[in-house]
Amino acid sequence: MERTYIKNLQAGQACRIQGFVENIRNTRAMMFLVIRDTTCKVQVTIEKMAHPELKEVLEHLTLESVVTVEGMAQLNPAVKLGGIEVLPSGLCVESLAAPLPLLKDSSVDVRMDYRWLSLRGEREQLLFRVQTLLLESMRQFLLKQDFMEIHTPKLIAMASESGSEVFEVKYFDGKAYLAQSPQFYKQMAMAAGFERVFEVGPVFRAEKSFTNRHATEFTGFDLEFSYITSFTDVMRLEEALLRDALRNVKEAYGKDIERLYGIEVTVPSLPFPVIALHDLYDELERRYGYAVPETEKGDTTTEAEQLAYRYVKEVYGHEFLFVTDFSSEKRAFYHMRKNGVPQGYDLNWCGVEITTGAQREHRYKLLLEQAEEKGLSEDVKFYTEFFRYGCPPHGGFGLGLDRLTMLLLNTTIKEAMFLFRGPNRITP
Amino acid sequence: MERTYIKNLQAGQACRIQGFVENIRNTRAMMFLVIRDTTCKVQVTIEKMAHPELKEVLEHLTLESVVTVEGMAQLNPAVKLGGIEVLPSGLCVESLAAPLPLLKDSSVDVRMDYRWLSLRGEREQLLFRVQTLLLESMRQFLLKQDFMEIHTPKLIAMASESGSEVFEVKYFDGKAYLAQSPQFYKQMAMAAGFERVFEVGPVFRAEKSFTNRHATEFTGFDLEFSYITSFTDVMRLEEALLRDALRNVKEAYGKDIERLYGIEVTVPSLPFPVIALHDLYDELERRYGYAVPETEKGDTTTEAEQLAYRYVKEVYGHEFLFVTDFSSEKRAFYHMRKNGVPQGYDLNWCGVEITTGAQREHRYKLLLEQAEEKGLSEDVKFYTEFFRYGCPPHGGFGLGLDRLTMLLLNTTIKEAMFLFRGPNRITP
Repeated sequence: MERTYIKNLQAGQACRIQGFVENIRNTRAMMFLVIRDTTCKVQVTIEKMAHPELKEVLEHLTLESVVTVEGMAQLNPAVKLGGIEVLPSGLCVESLAAPLPLLKDSSVDVRMDYRWLSLRGEREQLLFRVQTLLLESMRQFLLKQDFMEIHTPKLIAMASESGSEVFEVKYFDGKAYLAQSPQFYKQMAMAAGFERVFEVGPVFRAEKSFTNRHATEFTGFDLEFSYITSFTDVMRLEEALLRDALRNVKEAYGKDIERLYGIEVTVPSLPFPVIALHDLYDELERRYGYAVPETEKGDTTTEAEQLAYRYVKEVYGHEFLFVTDFSSEKRAFYHMRKNGVPQGYDLNWCGVEITTGAQREHRYKLLLEQAEEKGLSEDVKFYTEFFRYGCPPHGGFGLGLDRLTMLLLNTTIKEAMFLFRGPNRITP
Repeated sequence: MERTYIKNLQAGQACRIQGFVENIRNTRAMMFLVIRDTTCKVQVTIEKMAHPELKEVLEHLTLESVVTVEGMAQLNPAVKLGGIEVLPSGLCVESLAAPLPLLKDSSVDVRMDYRWLSLRGEREQLLFRVQTLLLESMRQFLLKQDFMEIHTPKLIAMASESGSEVFEVKYFDGKAYLAQSPQFYKQMAMAAGFERVFEVGPVFRAEKSFTNRHATEFTGFDLEFSYITSFTDVMRLEEALLRDALRNVKEAYGKDIERLYGIEVTVPSLPFPVIALHDLYDELERRYGYAVPETEKGDTTTEAEQLAYRYVKEVYGHEFLFVTDFSSEKRAFYHMRKNGVPQGYDLNWCGVEITTGAQREHRYKLLLEQAEEKGLSEDVKFYTEFFRYGCPPHGGFGLGLDRLTMLLLNTTIKEAMFLFRGPNRITP
């Protein structure tokens, strides 16, 4: 008999259900099991006297074991789970669980140690369904616009950007490094005339950060496209892409997110608010008395990002804010500049930076000058070569999928990743 | 003015085209450029006397520079490229190319050194369009069947399977390794009750292989699903997934593939032929006089794979062949066994192995025994733990996206990857 998903059970029909044993209640005459599959839960009601053949099995059955139950689904208004129960004709234990090491109030670390158990919760499963759809929506948005998907190497010969914070790999008799981002290679695709590319893949950061939003490995979502006329083209694409993804998530899982996370997903309106960094500091000082020395106004502080969220909520009723006009000292050498101002932006969501985007400098000589100015010309020589033989004007951005999920569901980065990696954690 | 893709040019209309200068022909009175964008090529015809303002620019223009041309598209039956030419009113050089280092007959190594230039060819661009669609089709196939997409860590604490052939990473004050496959973690997702997952991501193999089908880093396509009743469920899923993907590729790019690769894509019929390994050796001996000692018949040799292709073509008119019933000595410890026979298969395409799939051993005690038998119980302890607290029966397989592309277009692994990585190559 074919397996029946629990949500599809029909009273009066024979069924074969499979799942984890979530609860066991044992009385003298009866045994009640709650079985959970990926779709739903149901009660299995066993009259012990009627099933002497199950005596042995039931005596040893443990919580979270996996079982196959064949039987009849029938209406029972007294049953909480949808008013349906299953009366078994057979029950087979596929996998017997040892006593569980994990309790509801276990510490974050213990829950991480037994991640495969903590992931069994409905909240957790929803998170990965949401993440799947979020990513799928973003990809579809791009594929419909003729983007190609690329897979760039994570093993690289040189530290990707600054030489700091990269992991070193023993590569046969030599060394390699793990890519901090596909930045250089997605730009290489532009030099190759690919025009529009995206990539989804791991990025690695050898940072000793212990915040609730950093990880040493996470999933990057990166894109780059050619023949833009300004970095505002990049902003337009990103806001439309995010709106689309959030709308899809709200449609598919809005109610579940509200029930399990207490959050109402907001589909943002377009265009997203934009403010120049200097104007932002002026607003924050005027409105909230937040003052920083002039020398620090080239970049956002974490506090400024948080206050900027208050600002954008108050003034625009919006969760997103583009910030432009950073100082060239604070931006990567490959950002295009106009009158010295980097042609790029940060995008903040709920007070947390989620993206840096920009038009890139595609003109070989100017790029060399900017690399030199940052003292990087030797380190990035392999990269500047990409621009020697013709390259279209282009721009792009990168997002962290895990951080996006984290902000959407107002949780931590550890919960938003299948398996978190930090300076002190590379297991399980 | 908006950019016009060259394939969309309409005679009699103003246009703004952007692309690489593929050809320059200079006569006394005229200059003819061929401009190439991602969609097509077109001739730009410049009457020099009529454009004194372009004199300087045209004199210095080089092959493969990137230009923006504004002007009028008009019919000209004498022009080869679609009978349309563009008469410019303006021409701007976005990026001037230095003399090209790459020639048509450059060696494979030089072409790899300048990969961003060799990728500019129509053949190469088609390959990555095909790869994009191939992957997208496989993903869609799974998403429609409720698979979740996961992203498992590539930084791991222990060598993934056998301890050999993994890259070592300096991880702060300790060590980590690069995952050889997401095998253990996709199975962890089964223990977590995810039921159906897939992952697309890099896998790393520290193998000193110098064949035309091995790389030290490539893109893995992995899936795993629960509540299967046999490994044949895995075979059924895989053949349907591949047929679907190949059908989509043929529909979208069949003609281009024929034109540029001289290959007619075959959409395989279902079910794929299946043969047990021992029967295969019998057939190969009987038909082609290919004999191997009894002791080597537990696994396929490269030669046997190639002959098996001849066999399957002759007998079934098919390109694919499932081979089952390998020796347990030759298979991973985590394959489920039935009467000692591993419950899995290899899938060969055109004589090359593309997949190993199997039902996994999900029963803790049996898994421990099988790990012990291979002397691995300590190395894989973190993994066997996943099975202690209940785990559904499950199975899955892994594919290499690059190898799939390579076989589809009958090319080499180096050409089928955006950037190849091998023991002697980690650049660019």
